[in-house]
Amino acid sequence: MKERVIAEVSVIPIGTADTGLSTYVASCLKVLENSKDLTYRLTPMGTIIEGPLDKLLAAVSEMHEVPFSRGALRVVTHLKIDDRRDKPATMDSKVESVLKLQPSIKA
Amino acid sequence: MKERVIAEVSVIPIGTADTGLSTYVASCLKVLENSKDLTYRLTPMGTIIEGPLDKLLAAVSEMHEVPFSRGALRVVTHLKIDDRRDKPATMDSKVESVLKLQPSIKA
Amino acid sequence: MKERVIAEVSVIPIGTADTGLSTYVASCLKVLENSKDLTYRLTPMGTIIEGPLDKLLAAVSEMHEVPFSRGALRVVTHLKIDDRRDKPATMDSKVESVLKLQPSIKA
Amino acid sequence: MKERVIAEVSVIPIGTADTGLSTYVASCLKVLENSKDLTYRLTPMGTIIEGPLDKLLAAVSEMHEVPFSRGALRVVTHLKIDDRRDKPATMDSKVESVLKLQPSIKA
Repeated sequence: MKERVIAEVSVIPIGTADTGLSTYVASCLKVLENSKDLTYRLTPMGTIIEGPLDKLLAAVSEMHEVPFSRGALRVVTHLKIDDRRDKPATMDSKVESVLKLQPSIKA
Repeated sequence: MKERVIAEVSVIPIGTADTGLSTYVASCLKVLENSKDLTYRLTPMGTIIEGPLDKLLAAVSEMHEVPFSRGALRVVTHLKIDDRRDKPATMDSKVESVLKLQPSIKA
Repeated sequence: MKERVIAEVSVIPIGTADTGLSTYVASCLKVLENSKDLTYRLTPMGTIIEGPLDKLLAAVSEMHEVPFSRGALRVVTHLKIDDRRDKPATMDSKVESVLKLQPSIKA
Repeated sequence: MKERVIAEVSVIPIGTADTGLSTYVASCLKVLENSKDLTYRLTPMGTIIEGPLDKLLAAVSEMHEVPFSRGALRVVTHLKIDDRRDKPATMDSKVESVLKLQPSIKA
């Protein structure tokens, strides 16, 4: 297993009365704030996480549990893992490699 | 944690010469064929897995490793977990509950 | 643009009281039942659609609207498009090419 | 149809020799740079787009075509649409509503 992967996760409760999800998202992110092994960044469409795959999957499993602990009865979690092993990649280096080609891009 | 969740996974190697992915998919599915705890079904767009979340995440982690063991240097894995706890749900029951409402649907 | 692509779509209403989604799914599938240009198959985790990309995107746009017409105030729609142009691919041929390699696989 | 939705798109070529995707991403983003109707933001895991759904789907269709125009023979495109109609939502407001609850979050 490689030391660090980059992933994106989103955790959606189904059948809760509220259209807004920010309280759920804030609670989910506490899992990441308490992690020594993972770094993360909230985006408008999900949370990007960087770190070892096993720690990351453990955190996602914990985040998936958060809406249940707040009363939800169904949760749909999406995870996308991007794992590149021919050279080091970080959240920042992935964006920078595109900006190097096209500096006008908004990131 | 609930006993059984339903999930869909797809594992895509990046930067391999071949446009077809069936050899990678077949190898990934061996992980599931050898599992006592998980049931699965291959679809045209991914693999649906049913079982305990911890066993499922362990299998996904192993499936994610398969293309690397075949020479790929980058792998993108998508996972969607659907976890309903107000009543039992299986791969079959999810489809049947829709067919009950609309028997003409193709499934 | 290629004649036929294969895609998977799932349409999730957020903030509705009901944990079950089958009534929404059944209504969404009416869009596809009425289409002359698209074929589809319901799976336990989404709906797979085959057809020309422009017709497919028009149908997805219509399916995305369905939960709103039933009172939902927020909808999250996931779409994955698999478009292969080096040789013809269908829902069936994609699964068969894996089964040819590993006949014991469940599909 | 609502005036503005928020979406995330990622376009992945399959079977190209290169492990890196930044040249493809940079070309895809030109579609968005030329758009009067859409705003976008590149993240380490995809591109977030804000705008009217019909313009957005047209842009995604054009972005999906980009790797083919650069020689790819297979492309997998993922799209997630978040459409909230009970109150205005923007890329920034979505993140801010979480930060308001938990100011220590990294975004």
